[in-house]
Amino acid sequence: MTAIALQDYFARAIPLVEAEMRAVVNLNVFDIEQPAWFNTMLNYHLGFADAEGQPVQLSAGKRIRPMLVLLACEACGGEAQQALPAAAAVELLHNFSLIHDDIEDGDELRRGRPTLWKLWGVPQAINAGDAMFAQAHMAMGRLADVGVPAERVVRALRTFDAMCVHLTIGQHLDMGFEQRADVTAADYMAMIAGKTAALTRACCEIGAIVAGADDARVVALGEFGRGLGLSFQLQDDVLGIWGDPAKTGKQDSDLAHGKKTLPVLYAADQDARVRERYLIRKSTALTGADLAELKTMIEDAGGRAHTEAAAEAAFAQSMEAWDAAEVENDAGVALRDLAQSLLGRSA
Amino acid sequence: MTAIALQDYFARAIPLVEAEMRAVVNLNVFDIEQPAWFNTMLNYHLGFADAEGQPVQLSAGKRIRPMLVLLACEACGGEAQQALPAAAAVELLHNFSLIHDDIEDGDELRRGRPTLWKLWGVPQAINAGDAMFAQAHMAMGRLADVGVPAERVVRALRTFDAMCVHLTIGQHLDMGFEQRADVTAADYMAMIAGKTAALTRACCEIGAIVAGADDARVVALGEFGRGLGLSFQLQDDVLGIWGDPAKTGKQDSDLAHGKKTLPVLYAADQDARVRERYLIRKSTALTGADLAELKTMIEDAGGRAHTEAAAEAAFAQSMEAWDAAEVENDAGVALRDLAQSLLGRSA
Repeated sequence: MTAIALQDYFARAIPLVEAEMRAVVNLNVFDIEQPAWFNTMLNYHLGFADAEGQPVQLSAGKRIRPMLVLLACEACGGEAQQALPAAAAVELLHNFSLIHDDIEDGDELRRGRPTLWKLWGVPQAINAGDAMFAQAHMAMGRLADVGVPAERVVRALRTFDAMCVHLTIGQHLDMGFEQRADVTAADYMAMIAGKTAALTRACCEIGAIVAGADDARVVALGEFGRGLGLSFQLQDDVLGIWGDPAKTGKQDSDLAHGKKTLPVLYAADQDARVRERYLIRKSTALTGADLAELKTMIEDAGGRAHTEAAAEAAFAQSMEAWDAAEVENDAGVALRDLAQSLLGRSA
Repeated sequence: MTAIALQDYFARAIPLVEAEMRAVVNLNVFDIEQPAWFNTMLNYHLGFADAEGQPVQLSAGKRIRPMLVLLACEACGGEAQQALPAAAAVELLHNFSLIHDDIEDGDELRRGRPTLWKLWGVPQAINAGDAMFAQAHMAMGRLADVGVPAERVVRALRTFDAMCVHLTIGQHLDMGFEQRADVTAADYMAMIAGKTAALTRACCEIGAIVAGADDARVVALGEFGRGLGLSFQLQDDVLGIWGDPAKTGKQDSDLAHGKKTLPVLYAADQDARVRERYLIRKSTALTGADLAELKTMIEDAGGRAHTEAAAEAAFAQSMEAWDAAEVENDAGVALRDLAQSLLGRSA
């Protein structure tokens, strides 16, 4: 599939996924009308409504995850239509996690708007996140309504929930890093395996499960998704320090925020001065010239090269897994193309 | 079943439910070992460990909800063994909701020990709650491992998640009440339908679904559970104001905490002085003589009689639903006996 065909696929599929998301989020369970404020919070967070509950249509992220579900399903010979509820589910799950992450991290803005907790307070925002978590599961349950056999629905749901636990382990580790001066490169890899790669892995597995793929293919596509998630995160970590702010859209370097990403953690493993300056002393005190010096120290200690190599290795694993999955129809090729485009590579 | 037989049933079943809960909570998804602190938080909250992660065995509530699942399953001719994963699931779900409720309400103690957020901070506690929410779902998925047909597992899971959304609606309303001076008796009934009765209803429905009961019986047992939840809550509301502290274990009247329960809300609907004094002025300023006077005003305005009648009506609905379910085997009778014992009634 060409890049243009991939764009067309997204343009056709995203409105269908969003329609399914809206249907689930606005569903009145047991015919009980959702309280207006409750409903507004959920629709606001998803970019479907403003803070007064009035409909708006905002750009709401790239929706990569639901596309992975749909393409993985079609790559295994299934119909995208049957995977739509799962595609909506992974995007709702991702959005649930953002609601709680924003509280946990104290972030006041998301996609240029105040976060849920900032507008409506922490207690209501925690609860709205819980509601969306439950709704993500309800979306998975709707697989049964579009003809997916019950055995596959159960398997997809179990994959989904193991992923959710892995996600919370990743978030647990990430939050723990903030208080720790002894975080290693290996700790970081374990963290992003849960926080980032667990979901991209599950997206591909669930798409394959819905299609009725055999175990080997489910595993291979899961590995594809995992490698994709890891390499994307590691690429992002390099850009977070050495990227052009005009292109990344990030105002400051990750270093200015004290983020403990692989480049700095690897460098700290190699060079005690980096450890001392960034992990032991308060990194947030760093500005201007200090930052520039630290950046050089990290690069000199091999932090950049190591991270680029790790991203490369994860990408290579992803491509090997893609080969092993033997999914060479249009959707399978589109899946590989999507991975390559996300990582800024040509085929 | 006699009261003694019911006690025996609990004594036999609770260790099995707890073993299943432990198995799920300590499961290493994808063979990834749970971080020690993460694991400690989950086991601590459930009363399985102390704050250092060392095993303890604490009294951990009455475990009424899992018993409803097991008895409903057996009442419909199913085997309790097959409902064990669902019994563990509802108890894990209940415990997840307590973790987040404690944060939302700012409660520092639960069952005489510091709450999760109090020990480990709000961000980690939110995330631990999310983990237990996912684990409750994993427990449901284990129904497939003990021979429950996939169609029933899917139906049980969908019932479970609709209940979860209803639960968050109840919690949303409850938190909203704190800021509102215009809460009515009708608002209160809608709140407890979600916050209390949704789960007891789902317990009975899920037990029946696991057993393969027909729709009419699933609905009837759901109504039984709903009526039980409502009447129990309303009885608790009466005891919260007029109960003997030595028996209820509550140090203060609900009025001292400014709780907006049915007796006071009904009285406020009837008597503007109650509304003025309790809902419009800050109720938490009330002490000693003021409290005693308010209590009399509420009783004079019919708040107590109305709540007792509402509890009675909900109990009668529950018993009618029990009749309609036609579950007259030992477990079915035990289910009715359990309801009667919870509400302090003889048969």
